[in-house]
Amino acid sequence: MPNPTAAMLVIGDEILSGRTRDANMHYLAGQLTAAGINLCEVRVVSDDRTAIIAAARALSVANDYVFTSGGIGPTHDDITADCIAAAFDVHVDVRDDARALLQAHYDASGKELNEARLRMARIPDGATLIDNPVSIAPGFTLGNVHVMAGVPSVFQAMVASVLPTLVGGAPVQSRTLPLMRGEGDVAAPLTAFAQEYSDLSVGSYPFQKDGAYGTNLVLRGQDTVRLDEALGALKKVFSV
Amino acid sequence: MPNPTAAMLVIGDEILSGRTRDANMHYLAGQLTAAGINLCEVRVVSDDRTAIIAAARALSVANDYVFTSGGIGPTHDDITADCIAAAFDVHVDVRDDARALLQAHYDASGKELNEARLRMARIPDGATLIDNPVSIAPGFTLGNVHVMAGVPSVFQAMVASVLPTLVGGAPVQSRTLPLMRGEGDVAAPLTAFAQEYSDLSVGSYPFQKDGAYGTNLVLRGQDTVRLDEALGALKKVFSV
Repeated sequence: MPNPTAAMLVIGDEILSGRTRDANMHYLAGQLTAAGINLCEVRVVSDDRTAIIAAARALSVANDYVFTSGGIGPTHDDITADCIAAAFDVHVDVRDDARALLQAHYDASGKELNEARLRMARIPDGATLIDNPVSIAPGFTLGNVHVMAGVPSVFQAMVASVLPTLVGGAPVQSRTLPLMRGEGDVAAPLTAFAQEYSDLSVGSYPFQKDGAYGTNLVLRGQDTVRLDEALGALKKVFSV
Repeated sequence: MPNPTAAMLVIGDEILSGRTRDANMHYLAGQLTAAGINLCEVRVVSDDRTAIIAAARALSVANDYVFTSGGIGPTHDDITADCIAAAFDVHVDVRDDARALLQAHYDASGKELNEARLRMARIPDGATLIDNPVSIAPGFTLGNVHVMAGVPSVFQAMVASVLPTLVGGAPVQSRTLPLMRGEGDVAAPLTAFAQEYSDLSVGSYPFQKDGAYGTNLVLRGQDTVRLDEALGALKKVFSV
């Protein structure tokens, strides 16, 4: 059975303006690969209602799972919860379970659960909450879309809350053979190798080191015995 | 006149598997912002023909400019040139001008322009070449799509080749006011401020420092006089 597919939707003007460098995509990619879920696409869109709704719908239809990051805070530019509700045509408002979490948290810390903070309790009808052990304000899952925060520490905590609830597949493992040869030199034998080992994913990634060109050859697949056998064969091809 | 819009298409399994952390998105975002071009969307797709063609077409139609990174090397998994040609329904083959560049380069370095390296001279009909001072193999522009390499040093060199040829707008500038207060505390006055300064983009970005919550308030716009005036007003709102 093929592994489940996933997409990520990153929401935030600050990424697209170059002000902030996204850190969540790389983190999620590694976590999903380890869980045997294939991340097939990532989209980054601005804090724009039309763009968020369109992307959420498209990615939800095309993938088994969708993960979003960003736009669920208390300020006027945090519109993700409302957009995801709109994408699924469901009602959204402050919900009692989310409000209770926030009330207990702010009571304990002596802060007021003001109108702005209450925005973080806006949860679409039918959604289940995602636990946030870092800063309490929950994420949520609606349909196959998991809505999470943009702050990396909170995003990572929410991923840890969600991932164990999902059905994954056999983790994709990799074997890497670094060569201090340019891609143009390794391409022909690598193509022949990839045809012979067509059950594996065979990639080549160029790099520069001390001014010289090198290539990482990467084999990926789910069967470690097969991967080790292929790596041995690959070393023979390149006489290393 | 509003600034031109742009999208980026990142092509590469290695990003989606978590093996490599993309560096080109953040770089391009900063360069486009400085050039007065609004980056509206980024998509990351795998080395998959159908996915690349669909994304290239969608982004080309929706934006003034599209920039791609990745998949133009010499190996079997480098399929971007062929996919972009297919997206625009034009023919693609080894082209004499690109071949001449590579031939001169490999002659000078004593290497063979073999069949694999010749793949890097596959340029769609009607495309113009993008200069690559780092490693010679050119990128190309077809329609409004600028096709560039994935290796960051080469990507950056190609961006430097392309950007001066594009029509930009007034650069978007920003002013940042860092506050050691949580977003929930600043949200209400910030919303009122954003309504008063609706000609500017007003964002808030939470951070943690030494265990305490802080918020960066960011004003963005093209008129620096207006920005400085707004920053002064914002400082008064928050008594700093």
